[in-house]
Amino acid sequence: MPDRNELALIDWIRQRAASAPSLQLGIGDDCAVWQPSGSPLLFTTDVLMEDVDFRVAETTPQLIGRKAMAVNLSDIAAMAGRPLAALVGVALPKSRGFEFAKQLHEGMQSLAAEFDVVIIGGDTNIWDGPLVISVTLIGEATERGPVRRPGAKPGDWLFVTGPLGGSILGHHLTFTPRVREALELHRLVDLHAMIDLSDGLAADLHHLLDESSVGATLIENAIPISDAARRLRDDRSALDHALSDGEDFELLFAVSADDGRKLISRTDVTSPIHIGQIESQPGCRISAGNGTLRELPRGGWEHAF
Amino acid sequence: MPDRNELALIDWIRQRAASAPSLQLGIGDDCAVWQPSGSPLLFTTDVLMEDVDFRVAETTPQLIGRKAMAVNLSDIAAMAGRPLAALVGVALPKSRGFEFAKQLHEGMQSLAAEFDVVIIGGDTNIWDGPLVISVTLIGEATERGPVRRPGAKPGDWLFVTGPLGGSILGHHLTFTPRVREALELHRLVDLHAMIDLSDGLAADLHHLLDESSVGATLIENAIPISDAARRLRDDRSALDHALSDGEDFELLFAVSADDGRKLISRTDVTSPIHIGQIESQPGCRISAGNGTLRELPRGGWEHAF
Repeated sequence: MPDRNELALIDWIRQRAASAPSLQLGIGDDCAVWQPSGSPLLFTTDVLMEDVDFRVAETTPQLIGRKAMAVNLSDIAAMAGRPLAALVGVALPKSRGFEFAKQLHEGMQSLAAEFDVVIIGGDTNIWDGPLVISVTLIGEATERGPVRRPGAKPGDWLFVTGPLGGSILGHHLTFTPRVREALELHRLVDLHAMIDLSDGLAADLHHLLDESSVGATLIENAIPISDAARRLRDDRSALDHALSDGEDFELLFAVSADDGRKLISRTDVTSPIHIGQIESQPGCRISAGNGTLRELPRGGWEHAF
Repeated sequence: MPDRNELALIDWIRQRAASAPSLQLGIGDDCAVWQPSGSPLLFTTDVLMEDVDFRVAETTPQLIGRKAMAVNLSDIAAMAGRPLAALVGVALPKSRGFEFAKQLHEGMQSLAAEFDVVIIGGDTNIWDGPLVISVTLIGEATERGPVRRPGAKPGDWLFVTGPLGGSILGHHLTFTPRVREALELHRLVDLHAMIDLSDGLAADLHHLLDESSVGATLIENAIPISDAARRLRDDRSALDHALSDGEDFELLFAVSADDGRKLISRTDVTSPIHIGQIESQPGCRISAGNGTLRELPRGGWEHAF
C-alpha cells in the first residue's frame, strides 16, 4: 500500500490538478474517465531515467519534470496533434525527500498548463532506487489528420524548425516543444511527413527516409547550427554536432516544393529552415558549398547489452 | 538515440504487435493513432519497480511482465470497464540481456492478448539501473458507465470476488484480473461502488467508505481467507493476513440488499462473497462470531522518506 508520504504527495497533486470539460473523473479513483471528442486520439509514452536523461546534481527538479512532459509533447507535435491529457508515473528516490518531489511535479504541471494539458492520473512511488519518470500523453489529431513519418515524395523540400546541435549544454532541458508551430504549419501547408529530432538530424532523417522509401540530399550550408553547437569545443565540428547530436526536439518535415516556397515567403510564422530535398535515390547525401557530395552516416552514439 | 539492442528489441516487439480495427497506427511512429468508439475512455497507469513489486531472482521475466499488465487490468476491472490498449515503458538493466527483455514482453503480451488488449506503443530503454516497468492502460466504459468508489449507501451489502491474504506467496504474480467478473456483475446488478484490492481489504475498504461518506460492519466469519494466508505461519493470524495483506487484486463492491440477495442466489457466475454491510455510522467495524464488535484499523505497512 502507499506509504504516508506517497499519500500526502498524491493528495497534494490531486489538490493542484486542473480540470477540463472532457474530464469526467480525474485523479483519485482507479481510473480517470475522459469523454473523447470523436477525433482520432494520439498516444505516446516516454520514460526518463536518472543519469541517462538528466543528472540531478546538474539541474533542478522543476527542469527534470519539465523535460519529462516536454519530450512527450514533442511526440504529439511530430504528428501535428493537439495535446490533451497526461498520466505520470514516478519512482522517487527516498533520499531526495518531499520538497524535491513537489518541485518535480511543479515542473511537469507548469509546462502541461502552458499547452492546456491536464494531468488526469498517475502512479506515485517512493523507493531506494534512482529517479525514473514515465509520462504518457494523450492528444488528438486535427481535422487534417495526424502527420506520419511515411509520405515524403521525391521533389519535396525538407525543413527544420530551428537550430541544431549542442543540446547537452542545456537545451535538452529547456526546449519548447514545437506543438504550436506544428499546428500552424499543418494549417498552412500539406505536411507530407514529419518527425521530431530526438536522436539527432542524421538518425531521424534516416528514419523518415526509410519509412517513406525515399532518399535525400541536404545542403551543408543550410543546416542551422545552434550557438551551443559552436560553443562545444571538442574534436567534432559544429556541423557534426548539428547533424549528430540528439535531443534538439525541433521538427523535421517534408512538403511539396510549392508549399516550401510558400513557407519561405512568409514572415509571420516561426520561419522553418529549408535544408534539402527528397529524392528517389535511396540514402542521404550532403552537398558541400564547393559542390562535392558525400554520404551522411546515420550518426549518433551506441551502447549495447 | 536508441542503441542497437534497443532498436532490435523494438523491431522484435513491433513484429509481434497485434492489430485492432480501432488502431489506425501502432508501434513505429511518433505516436499511436486510435479511433475511439465514442464511449467514455478509462485511463490508468502503474509503475512496477525491481525489489519493490517483484524480485528478479525469485520469479521469471514472463511473470514480471504479466504482473505489470495485470495490475493495470485490475484498475480497469475496478471501474467495470473494457480494456482496449496499452503503452509500455521499460528501463531494462543492461546486465539482464536481450532474452530477458523478450520474455518480459512475452509475459505482458500474452496476458494482454487474453483480454483483447493491443499494445499500441511504448518506450524501450536499456540502462545500468534496476528494472522498472510502466504500463498505461486505456479502456472504455460500458453503456452502464464506469463504476466509481463513491456511491455506497447505508444498507448496501459488501462483497469480494475471492479469497484474501498471503499473496506474497505467489498470487501477486499469477492472479487473474477480475475484468470478466466485473463486466458480468455490472450487467447483472447495479454496482453502487467498487475498488480493486491492491492495498489490502482494510485499507481499500476505508478508501471506498471515505469516498462514499459511509461506514461499514464486516462479518468476521464471512471474510474469505486464502489457503496462502493460512500457510503463512508467522506472528499474525490468517484472518489478519486476509484483512491487511496487499495485492489480492480481488474486487470489493457494494450493491443494494436486493441485488445482494440476487447475487447470492445465482450459481452460474463466479460467486462473490458477502462480507458485510454499509452503514451510515462512519468508520469500519468487524463483528466476531460471539457478537462482539471491534474497530478495523486501516492496516497495511508503512515506509516514508
